[in-house]
Amino acid sequence: MQFLSDNAAAVHPRVWAAMQAADAPDAPYDGDALSRELDARFSALFGRDCAVLWVATGTAANCLALATLCPPHGGVVCHREAHIEVDEAGAPGFYLHGAKLMLAEGAKGSGGAKLTPEAIRAVIDPIRDDVHQVQPHAISVTQASEYGRAYRPAELAAIGALAAERGLGLHVDGARFGNAVAFLGCTPAEAVGPAQALSFGMVKNGGMSAEAIVFFDPALADVARYRRKRAGHLQSKGRYLAAQVLAMLEGDLWLDNARAANAAAAEIGTACGARLMHPVEANEVFVRLTSDEREALRAHGFGFYDWGADAARFVAAWNTREDDALALARAIAAL
Amino acid sequence: MQFLSDNAAAVHPRVWAAMQAADAPDAPYDGDALSRELDARFSALFGRDCAVLWVATGTAANCLALATLCPPHGGVVCHREAHIEVDEAGAPGFYLHGAKLMLAEGAKGSGGAKLTPEAIRAVIDPIRDDVHQVQPHAISVTQASEYGRAYRPAELAAIGALAAERGLGLHVDGARFGNAVAFLGCTPAEAVGPAQALSFGMVKNGGMSAEAIVFFDPALADVARYRRKRAGHLQSKGRYLAAQVLAMLEGDLWLDNARAANAAAAEIGTACGARLMHPVEANEVFVRLTSDEREALRAHGFGFYDWGADAARFVAAWNTREDDALALARAIAAL
Amino acid sequence: MQFLSDNAAAVHPRVWAAMQAADAPDAPYDGDALSRELDARFSALFGRDCAVLWVATGTAANCLALATLCPPHGGVVCHREAHIEVDEAGAPGFYLHGAKLMLAEGAKGSGGAKLTPEAIRAVIDPIRDDVHQVQPHAISVTQASEYGRAYRPAELAAIGALAAERGLGLHVDGARFGNAVAFLGCTPAEAVGPAQALSFGMVKNGGMSAEAIVFFDPALADVARYRRKRAGHLQSKGRYLAAQVLAMLEGDLWLDNARAANAAAAEIGTACGARLMHPVEANEVFVRLTSDEREALRAHGFGFYDWGADAARFVAAWNTREDDALALARAIAAL
Amino acid sequence: MQFLSDNAAAVHPRVWAAMQAADAPDAPYDGDALSRELDARFSALFGRDCAVLWVATGTAANCLALATLCPPHGGVVCHREAHIEVDEAGAPGFYLHGAKLMLAEGAKGSGGAKLTPEAIRAVIDPIRDDVHQVQPHAISVTQASEYGRAYRPAELAAIGALAAERGLGLHVDGARFGNAVAFLGCTPAEAVGPAQALSFGMVKNGGMSAEAIVFFDPALADVARYRRKRAGHLQSKGRYLAAQVLAMLEGDLWLDNARAANAAAAEIGTACGARLMHPVEANEVFVRLTSDEREALRAHGFGFYDWGADAARFVAAWNTREDDALALARAIAAL
Repeated sequence: MQFLSDNAAAVHPRVWAAMQAADAPDAPYDGDALSRELDARFSALFGRDCAVLWVATGTAANCLALATLCPPHGGVVCHREAHIEVDEAGAPGFYLHGAKLMLAEGAKGSGGAKLTPEAIRAVIDPIRDDVHQVQPHAISVTQASEYGRAYRPAELAAIGALAAERGLGLHVDGARFGNAVAFLGCTPAEAVGPAQALSFGMVKNGGMSAEAIVFFDPALADVARYRRKRAGHLQSKGRYLAAQVLAMLEGDLWLDNARAANAAAAEIGTACGARLMHPVEANEVFVRLTSDEREALRAHGFGFYDWGADAARFVAAWNTREDDALALARAIAAL
Repeated sequence: MQFLSDNAAAVHPRVWAAMQAADAPDAPYDGDALSRELDARFSALFGRDCAVLWVATGTAANCLALATLCPPHGGVVCHREAHIEVDEAGAPGFYLHGAKLMLAEGAKGSGGAKLTPEAIRAVIDPIRDDVHQVQPHAISVTQASEYGRAYRPAELAAIGALAAERGLGLHVDGARFGNAVAFLGCTPAEAVGPAQALSFGMVKNGGMSAEAIVFFDPALADVARYRRKRAGHLQSKGRYLAAQVLAMLEGDLWLDNARAANAAAAEIGTACGARLMHPVEANEVFVRLTSDEREALRAHGFGFYDWGADAARFVAAWNTREDDALALARAIAAL
Repeated sequence: MQFLSDNAAAVHPRVWAAMQAADAPDAPYDGDALSRELDARFSALFGRDCAVLWVATGTAANCLALATLCPPHGGVVCHREAHIEVDEAGAPGFYLHGAKLMLAEGAKGSGGAKLTPEAIRAVIDPIRDDVHQVQPHAISVTQASEYGRAYRPAELAAIGALAAERGLGLHVDGARFGNAVAFLGCTPAEAVGPAQALSFGMVKNGGMSAEAIVFFDPALADVARYRRKRAGHLQSKGRYLAAQVLAMLEGDLWLDNARAANAAAAEIGTACGARLMHPVEANEVFVRLTSDEREALRAHGFGFYDWGADAARFVAAWNTREDDALALARAIAAL
Repeated sequence: MQFLSDNAAAVHPRVWAAMQAADAPDAPYDGDALSRELDARFSALFGRDCAVLWVATGTAANCLALATLCPPHGGVVCHREAHIEVDEAGAPGFYLHGAKLMLAEGAKGSGGAKLTPEAIRAVIDPIRDDVHQVQPHAISVTQASEYGRAYRPAELAAIGALAAERGLGLHVDGARFGNAVAFLGCTPAEAVGPAQALSFGMVKNGGMSAEAIVFFDPALADVARYRRKRAGHLQSKGRYLAAQVLAMLEGDLWLDNARAANAAAAEIGTACGARLMHPVEANEVFVRLTSDEREALRAHGFGFYDWGADAARFVAAWNTREDDALALARAIAAL
């Protein structure tokens, strides 16, 4: 009964099927028919012109997107606990050539690592136009956030307004974008707000090795295309990645998978009561648990990561069995 | 009847089977059981301690390997027509942070873009210890070369001796390493010579999305491990890549596939006579053909790339049908 | 009566004289007789083998030194308020190719932005050997610190011991190294501790445009020599920079100048009583002053920078007149 | 009697005087009154709006200028023997983050390393819009060229037209811009053509440590300002650099110095007859001389660099004595 991470879960059968259907004939390098479908499919999904590139990992998606929004001498404002800052081994420093992540505090308490216009201003106002200081060129938010909280459309609009006022780009790290949309019950367009680029995550949501970088400004995709090749991320048999992405869109598989994961997380969250560190909105559950309590759960066969000394993180995936979630919920309630 | 490139060919059934067998349970990020098998399997193959990382593309393999051998202020000597110089969109400049590719002329005529100690010395001797000049730190050779020629073990030994004398690292770009070994009929160890790192290509040889970087100095792998993550090439479901690599090694599938491709190329080459630009050793055939002749071949249904104004390149793959190769051979002979 | 910064003060007459004495004949690029004297002069000063490069700015000195100690994928531990983090416009990100500054909290209260082994461990222990995290490769301390505090030799030894235990390099940003030595009354060697590289500041201390990077490991200087050229910091008329550095060493001008600045700062500090934010050890005085009080001082003709909303920073230079310092001291006391 | 290089010559007395006049009071960092004069002075010189930054070396000037015209994934077309390619130790790779120098052949024979539209097209046309190839973003020409040849205004206009047609930036490396203008007898504006940025060299022409980057598009200067700081080239006592630059402009000292150097070179060139490798237009003379002949000249006390195995380069400076030039001319004629 594993709740370690959604990013190691099995591949969805419909993704497998689509990959195998792509196996037929020779296809040109980065110009196969499947890859060429992506722009139209995402444009339909978001109701506006999109230019879309597949790439193998979320780290590459985030960094390639950000590199189109921020020059090497610039900065990207993100939350102090953003994945790009704490979990990508310096990849933004590599892809953005030493550009600076400018770390903002988010809303306090149960804010869940979400940025606010105030938190952003606190970082960028004091150093404005000071040549001794890195100047901001973009903002990156995570939807859903690192603590499983979803930005409401109005929150994104407010951040977007600040970005526009200051001439900053806006990027959404959507490693769990499906989970956010599933929770919000809004359109994908509403969940991404006025961003120029979205890392639309699929690997955590039933895919194998394909994420989509969705550019809402096609000119940025033209830059990213060269940078993708330059980063060794242009796969010669890219049709197998395109097939994965298309399978996820087909019949809203991405949304169904996310709903399933969210439901399992909600089940667990309900059992946690005051132990909960953040409201459960997506598919992650952060729970205060002593070391003894964690040991007890593990003795019952549950796998999960510690979260600091006094808490644990449980992540549900598209294929988490309802019974397993229920069993975990009961075990926590019984502590 | 496609002879465009081996890098877009279909995936071998045994690779598919291995990927699906990896689909079972959750597995830890970059620490799955399959990935852990790689070091032992390659150590057995090469008869010495190897540390091995999978990565999705040959460009990433080459660049991650080279980045362990050359600092940002250094240079890598390679042939003027090396893939890293002419076909990777500046990826070495990205991964090596602006290090310089120091371009050497190879042996003349039918040399096939192979380096020699003399050609290397002609580049590095005149600027030795001059602070206004980038100094060499590594040499990169391509086995088989960009024109389908294989380095003989003695040639690699001579280059390796020069590298050792000057304190330079040695890297082998083995995008078609299998084709070289199949042609040479030697051991893999002999075909790689005294290199510190080998990009062992599999995507062109029946794989889908996994190449192996083989480090003969395990300390380099420890550096590359961090750089792989930093480049967004550490896939969370890496077990599917490890499975591909292991399937290629199993029962020497890599060698069987390469032999098949080489045989098809040889068939074509035999028909070309004086049109041949380079002896056919691996799976590529470079043929002098006028524009009219190329048009005629295309009219017969053959797909291939032009090679400049007066020639064409035909590439055979693991799955090239004997009939297709024969048909092409006859069509060329009949021109 | 300016107390804005020592880094814009006039050039000392003996520095001018030395520059003019260097004007005579043509001299080879980076190989002039004056530049060749540096190694011996600094080796004598520190009582051990030194290899020394001049460079025009402290930012370049810090970054070139750090680049010899930390690869692009690594990290440098420094204090959260270190100059390299807060005041160099991202230069370390540029010179170290995206390496990460790993920010440590220093000793609390009057600690003055000084690092401790505990503060360093709090940053590097939790992420040790985690491939998703940037790993530390070096530590950088500022002597005297950003708040004018000097590291005692025992403090440096303790940090150096941790560095050695973990295989980390140690760099000292000595933009105000002279002020630290003047305060400590120890030898330069004691004030630099077991560092591999020191940015020995001279511009803030009476020089015009030359700092010295002192490498206690000559092999590092050989790397830095190429990187200096690559950064456009190898000046063709470098003899004028070497002349400045030699003039500063001659007769311990660097120490005399620092003593004069420290004395002026001490004079001011004595008048500040409980307003002092940090003990005055070097030539900077941080003073709690309301906005009205600062306005009053400015009305009296004193120039200085605000330090946040409720404080001010006064910096004394080698040429601060005793009368000016006394006048400022009296004006503060009279508030 | 030194003809090694103009870049190590003594500093002109009027430059010294201006530096000392700048020594008076404290001045703000990068905002001093002298630095603020630069834009107006160069705007008057070029008859259009200029934004100007001082920097210590020509390498830094070239690289900071190019970094405003070419992103990390792009390329800069330059001559195969351009200074940025052969003499800056990889600095463009550093400042442009791995962007590629795309090497063009120049006009043949006595072309003197000058680019032509045809030579540029031969490099950029074959790889146009190919994602596997670095795409050009800028062109860099050297005025006067590495062989002392000056681009005529019409030649620059033709290159500029090509640049405009392809959306490429145009940079002029004017390390010896004064020598070119002095030879051409045109206005500075005519000698720079439709460039966006000029590295206006002064160190080789009587300065000590200040070159001017002249941006004809002020928006580029705003980018370069941050990059200059980031590269450690923002000197705190920048008024001493601004003073040098202003002294060079004052009374056209830059033009007088260049004329003097050109005249000395012309004197030498006249004596060389058929030995001349390139017409002498600026202050460099390339002469075919056997090894014995060079030895004979050195035995007469002449200092100069070999130029390959069968030639030598003589460079005249602003302070080359007429007698010395005459003596060299006679010595060559007498060989």
